[in-house]
Amino acid sequence: MRMEWIMIENIENTIVAISTPPGKGGIAIIRLSGKESVEIVSKIFRGKHDLRNVEPGKAVFGKIVDDDIEIDEVIVIVYKAPNSYTKEDMIEINCHGGMYVSQRILEVAINHGAVLAQPGEFTFRAFLNGRIDLSQAEAVADLIHAQTEASRHVSYSQLEGKLSTKITDMRNNLVDYSSLIELELDFSEEDVEFVDRSDFILKLKEGQKELENLISTYQIGRIAREGIKLVIVGRPNVGKSSLLNALIREERAIVTEVPGTTRDSLEVQLDIKGILFRVFDTAGIKVSDDRVEQEGINRARRHLESADVILHVFDGSQILENEDYDIINSIQKLNNTSIIRIINKSDLTQKIEKKKIQSNGIPLLTISATKGDGISSLEKQLYRCVVNDDGKIFSEEIIVTNMRHWEALNKALESLKKATEETEKRVSSEFISLYLRDALDYLGQITGKVTREDILNNIFSKFCIGK
Amino acid sequence: MRMEWIMIENIENTIVAISTPPGKGGIAIIRLSGKESVEIVSKIFRGKHDLRNVEPGKAVFGKIVDDDIEIDEVIVIVYKAPNSYTKEDMIEINCHGGMYVSQRILEVAINHGAVLAQPGEFTFRAFLNGRIDLSQAEAVADLIHAQTEASRHVSYSQLEGKLSTKITDMRNNLVDYSSLIELELDFSEEDVEFVDRSDFILKLKEGQKELENLISTYQIGRIAREGIKLVIVGRPNVGKSSLLNALIREERAIVTEVPGTTRDSLEVQLDIKGILFRVFDTAGIKVSDDRVEQEGINRARRHLESADVILHVFDGSQILENEDYDIINSIQKLNNTSIIRIINKSDLTQKIEKKKIQSNGIPLLTISATKGDGISSLEKQLYRCVVNDDGKIFSEEIIVTNMRHWEALNKALESLKKATEETEKRVSSEFISLYLRDALDYLGQITGKVTREDILNNIFSKFCIGK
Repeated sequence: MRMEWIMIENIENTIVAISTPPGKGGIAIIRLSGKESVEIVSKIFRGKHDLRNVEPGKAVFGKIVDDDIEIDEVIVIVYKAPNSYTKEDMIEINCHGGMYVSQRILEVAINHGAVLAQPGEFTFRAFLNGRIDLSQAEAVADLIHAQTEASRHVSYSQLEGKLSTKITDMRNNLVDYSSLIELELDFSEEDVEFVDRSDFILKLKEGQKELENLISTYQIGRIAREGIKLVIVGRPNVGKSSLLNALIREERAIVTEVPGTTRDSLEVQLDIKGILFRVFDTAGIKVSDDRVEQEGINRARRHLESADVILHVFDGSQILENEDYDIINSIQKLNNTSIIRIINKSDLTQKIEKKKIQSNGIPLLTISATKGDGISSLEKQLYRCVVNDDGKIFSEEIIVTNMRHWEALNKALESLKKATEETEKRVSSEFISLYLRDALDYLGQITGKVTREDILNNIFSKFCIGK
Repeated sequence: MRMEWIMIENIENTIVAISTPPGKGGIAIIRLSGKESVEIVSKIFRGKHDLRNVEPGKAVFGKIVDDDIEIDEVIVIVYKAPNSYTKEDMIEINCHGGMYVSQRILEVAINHGAVLAQPGEFTFRAFLNGRIDLSQAEAVADLIHAQTEASRHVSYSQLEGKLSTKITDMRNNLVDYSSLIELELDFSEEDVEFVDRSDFILKLKEGQKELENLISTYQIGRIAREGIKLVIVGRPNVGKSSLLNALIREERAIVTEVPGTTRDSLEVQLDIKGILFRVFDTAGIKVSDDRVEQEGINRARRHLESADVILHVFDGSQILENEDYDIINSIQKLNNTSIIRIINKSDLTQKIEKKKIQSNGIPLLTISATKGDGISSLEKQLYRCVVNDDGKIFSEEIIVTNMRHWEALNKALESLKKATEETEKRVSSEFISLYLRDALDYLGQITGKVTREDILNNIFSKFCIGK
């Protein structure tokens, strides 16, 4: 078990952070974790109760003071190890909301010996102290960032340990074989086999099958967690922005402006029946030789290439133009992308040659974005790009949502395949052992049973402070 | 006691709101108050404990469910009336932070009978149920909005009831006299006096003195609560923006952009030794006849007229120009404004005729904004505009911070003066009684003993939802 981690040396510290979001609200929470939690808060707390003797988990009223200055009226809850979020002694101070008061209490706690927590350090301690594993820790961050029912569902299920249990089971199924084959190495000169090779091959193939099943859930898992990238395309003045506005009117826009998006392709996030759609309007993409316009077109093309779904919009009141065909041709080359063709402006006299844009396997919908006609049909069609044939988004109970997990599963599968090949070749146990050990390591990386500092750093640095 | 309030009819409802600020954080709190709190949450809570029998104030672990769907792992605390913030039954649900999860739990609570709380409704119920009075309720909002130590200090002291106690004492001192004088009215034909007139006059004058003392704290109270409006003025290129930047470098800028400020005068908020300074840089104010520039100048002038402190900046490396004198003349006419003259660019060869801008009572400081020289002296000078001669900001224990209170105190004083006059004139008790009753009413408005719907509406609508 490789486990090295530079933060471990700091786990003797008592950490503190504001655990509620910044901004104005009724309540803010300042949270401490570590051996000195009770001692530190006792020094800055005045109330009827002595926090050193107070019943764990019981809300206690009092005041936080900085020497003689009363800072705020608070409710304090003491949690005693191991019955806390981090499995350490913890204290939660509920004070009046707003930035200044909570900052002030934070400062006083720091002045009395607490150390400002790193992002995710509470959850990191929960992981290090064995309350949750790594995939559960990752699920905490995912749950906090969830914007739709789908993302909440998959991260909550992961937090509950469904993925962890599955991975642990798969590891346990292989770990005995691994020990026995390693034992064979000690007796290599005597040419004994502690593991029946045909049984072992069956077990390995079973493992491969399970891995393949898990890996196959990633496509839907990624969509649940990150949403669907929907790109609206079409020649100028076909009503792309009107279509986007119609979608916004119909559904709840989560965020209207996302930092880092370029001016010429606005991102709007929509929650359509629990699925996040990240909609990009490639305002006025034109196929053109003009060099000045080239950069804008390149940018639009990059959006198209990474799209999950493309809405190609036509103007029903006009005959088709060369540009329409050019776009048809350029997006048809894209792989792994669903295309939906939309004839807009159904409220006007129709001149479009509809038959020319009918293709097998490409849905064609007629709408009026300005009147709102056909928008709900479009949404149903969009939803159908995601759901399974049985109409459910999640037919599998365990869904892989995280690219790190997906990569580890693929590597584990690769190693298992190699172990199987070696076993079938009936060569030295040495290579079998090597590949099997690799597979176990890759699986262990998911739950954090096997981990490296850079992986941990990468995971916990994405947390907010106070979690 | 006049007390009417349209919200009272709704107090039978059980209200719910997210009490932590919106945004991403480790923890969010959903709060319920009202008779049905326990019943409603019991329907959506799964855990080892039955919330109906759980010990009040004890943190209980469990899950919030929407029918069969588990939404999140939570910690729930039940508070039983009257031992809660609102004096009603209350429940706090601590869930994972982030918008979606808390929003989802809110929705489930609403689907099971809770009503979304109005802004400030929790605090309003605390007021209505007599746990706090109106000035304390106002202090809750002030504390949440506090941005500096001074504003925290004055609002906390008000929350602790220091102002309330003072007002109640003053009222009690007068209320017996009021009853006795009203009694005289019943015996008016017999011409009896239950109240000794000279004693009474002493008492009235004592009351006036107390009111005047309280009213006089408002200037410092307003500064503590709302901050000092500091306007930087000077002809173009004297280094106004550099000065602002130097102040920002030296101190903590709280907010760099304030909504609603105009482009041509940026507001920056600084916390200088616990006092909020709202700094306006009237970028390039020029005395000009050009009509196009007139609007900008008018705007700058309005800022100057409402300034508490004006920093008039000169360029030390240049001789004085007519514009410098024009500004000197125009701001000298302003009342109630401290002026500080600043000679900037001390790092360059000095050409300014320093003597010409020396005036009695107007501090003159030499600085280099770009080098940072003299900035701390300037800050000391700024601080001196606020503190008393004894070096303390708050020499009085009770500080009036709220314009509503200040107006009520002034009206009470006015009424007491009239009551005194009437008493001294030894005319009918009727008028004495009338003015005395007015004074008592005005004092009662501060604590909410006497109140009107529009006042309450105005106060609580300024709260955030969830408080």
